Amino acid sequence: MISVEEALETVLGHFDPLDAERRPILDALGQVLAEDVISSASIPPFDNSAMDGYAVQSGDVAGAGRDKPIELRVIADLAAGRVAGVSVGPGTAVRIMTGAPLPNGADAVVRFEDTDEASAPSTREGGRIGVMVPVVSGENVRYAGEDVRTGELVIPKGATVRPSEIGVLASLGRKDVLVHRRPKVAVLATGDELVEIDEPVSPGKIRNSNSYSVASLVARYGGVPVMLGIARDRIEELTAKLAEGLTTDLVITSGGVSVGDYDMVKNVLKAEGKIDFWQVRMKPGKPLAFGHIRGVPLLGLPGNPVSAMVSFEQFGRPAILKMLGKTKLAKPTVSATLTEDVENYSGRRHYIRAILEKRDGRYYAWTTGEQGSGILTSMAKANGLVVIPEDQKLVKAGTEVMVQMLDWSEEQA
Amino acid sequence: MISVEEALETVLGHFDPLDAERRPILDALGQVLAEDVISSASIPPFDNSAMDGYAVQSGDVAGAGRDKPIELRVIADLAAGRVAGVSVGPGTAVRIMTGAPLPNGADAVVRFEDTDEASAPSTREGGRIGVMVPVVSGENVRYAGEDVRTGELVIPKGATVRPSEIGVLASLGRKDVLVHRRPKVAVLATGDELVEIDEPVSPGKIRNSNSYSVASLVARYGGVPVMLGIARDRIEELTAKLAEGLTTDLVITSGGVSVGDYDMVKNVLKAEGKIDFWQVRMKPGKPLAFGHIRGVPLLGLPGNPVSAMVSFEQFGRPAILKMLGKTKLAKPTVSATLTEDVENYSGRRHYIRAILEKRDGRYYAWTTGEQGSGILTSMAKANGLVVIPEDQKLVKAGTEVMVQMLDWSEEQA
Repeated sequence: MISVEEALETVLGHFDPLDAERRPILDALGQVLAEDVISSASIPPFDNSAMDGYAVQSGDVAGAGRDKPIELRVIADLAAGRVAGVSVGPGTAVRIMTGAPLPNGADAVVRFEDTDEASAPSTREGGRIGVMVPVVSGENVRYAGEDVRTGELVIPKGATVRPSEIGVLASLGRKDVLVHRRPKVAVLATGDELVEIDEPVSPGKIRNSNSYSVASLVARYGGVPVMLGIARDRIEELTAKLAEGLTTDLVITSGGVSVGDYDMVKNVLKAEGKIDFWQVRMKPGKPLAFGHIRGVPLLGLPGNPVSAMVSFEQFGRPAILKMLGKTKLAKPTVSATLTEDVENYSGRRHYIRAILEKRDGRYYAWTTGEQGSGILTSMAKANGLVVIPEDQKLVKAGTEVMVQMLDWSEEQA
Repeated sequence: MISVEEALETVLGHFDPLDAERRPILDALGQVLAEDVISSASIPPFDNSAMDGYAVQSGDVAGAGRDKPIELRVIADLAAGRVAGVSVGPGTAVRIMTGAPLPNGADAVVRFEDTDEASAPSTREGGRIGVMVPVVSGENVRYAGEDVRTGELVIPKGATVRPSEIGVLASLGRKDVLVHRRPKVAVLATGDELVEIDEPVSPGKIRNSNSYSVASLVARYGGVPVMLGIARDRIEELTAKLAEGLTTDLVITSGGVSVGDYDMVKNVLKAEGKIDFWQVRMKPGKPLAFGHIRGVPLLGLPGNPVSAMVSFEQFGRPAILKMLGKTKLAKPTVSATLTEDVENYSGRRHYIRAILEKRDGRYYAWTTGEQGSGILTSMAKANGLVVIPEDQKLVKAGTEVMVQMLDWSEEQA
């Protein structure tokens, strides 16, 4: 039986970032840049005022003070979006709004609050303004190219497109951008015992929940789920359903990978393609198959609802992230203090559903109770998975353990 | 000028969770339950086998051992999804697959690995099987109702729908679920200096980036952005554009809230509705308006690209989360060691764009450099905002500071 690390290395070896597609910038949120974004212009494109105030020559107002304002003649009144038709010479000023281009001749802006404008409101064009605070050259001026210079690499290939990247792309005049496309992931449940969620449950049957938990995990990590429904435990039906999935980037099945007579996924994978492994030294999730059929990777999750989700987090998630072009593939973990004893006599790596709480800057973790792999509500109670190493049989309360975060519940809607 | 806390209290006082809508469970991912989910049946619905093996009476095999197998007569072979037509009596066993209903009379399951099946393959119905390991009553049995009992509150109102909740809903036979609907948020940029991102930039003009950064922030936190474009600095045009936004749950503008002559948003808000505040003791983001027009809240962000984003994180984000029905509204923060001196002579709370790195379990933070509020690329470089209190003028390198996380870059695709 191979280790989690060996299994992960095998899985990730079969995936690469997908081909690039051009998308409108708003639609690219969360995808990864497949091009270097180079600026074709400077931002801001011109020196402009950072404040509402008066554009002046700083030398004129060097001696200004609250008690001895220096008077300047106002020769123009400049709104944002307009260009001054005049130059600021000695003894003159242009009244200027935030964002308006700095007029020729001016080298600084005095804020409204630092003039007597409030007490002498008739200071528009043609009037006079008293400056009460000196400014140094460049004060309250935003220089052309201060944010971005022409030809500069602004956002490198490989960066994730977040709201700030979208803002930068917009400011560069980019309507669309080249990103790695999102993977299509086929989701197939297998088993004679399954009925669809809107069908009546006859004796011996249970509802297909795995397709829904797995499809939403796919979506959550940035893939596009393609629902293939349920395949019965017959070679022909499973083979046909899998064929439907071969137009996607990854096929994920649940069930049919254990040692039972009806564990068809393993058999079909062997017959139609290649099986890389079908058992991993972990709990839950020991029966876990990976292989490919006609070039399309297949991840065969166990049928137990909890095992399916836990195995997905270990193998499905990093595969999807790698196809998206992401490079940080490891599940985020924190260190937490265990508040109860935990046993692990399985000899396998044990992922224990747990509740994490942060108190005074430290994390504490305890189990959700009964860890049976059919107990799906335990996943709904959990916000983390405590990871107990293969060789640790008893972990005492008070020990620091590693916990994979299932969600940062305070983050993301 | 009011404090950030006072402003936030005023803003949040105007929002409540939105009305409920019924959605297919997969589409409800990330939304918040507006109903208690009560189980109408037990899960699993019947006692069933947790393993592939043999259903037995545990008393029969109490004395079993590897060297002295106890022989039982195999009276049936039971696949998952089928119901046994026979009862297990003393001296007999039913071969059983994982998930198949436990036959009457049996009280435990012996795993294949703990029998001599591998060495004596003809042990199907009618044959005999040697049990080599004893089992206790209940071993390898999943009992009816072990996961969920009929009538039990399974997921409470107010829970966020994650993949595990979707799995649980599916297992309960729920095709759809009642959740608070996502808020529609109108996004409007204002200013004579703005051109749309695909238009040429004539002298004195800049591109409208705020609509894109703000719309993607709205989407990121779970709202549905409605793009209203650009309103010029004329009362009539702004009034008309705002009227378009009044069918949404929140109107967010950028620009037009400062002290300049063309700061129309403030004026229209006063004339057409009510203004609650228009200045907050923060940096960037001091000019920040909040009010409402005909019952629709309006958040007037500053026009500077960085100020708009930082203010959105403080006020727009929690407003959206509250409308979604979330209760954790505070931005996630971590404590980090500052690796350089930082000054704050503004007397306002300063949000400094910063880069956070975790080393040996501790966070370290440093600034992205130049903090001018027009420097949007600094937001793209940052993954956090260092929060410097209003009254702290100089924070030395080595000090522990609070940092709002802009993203957990390792999480979420």
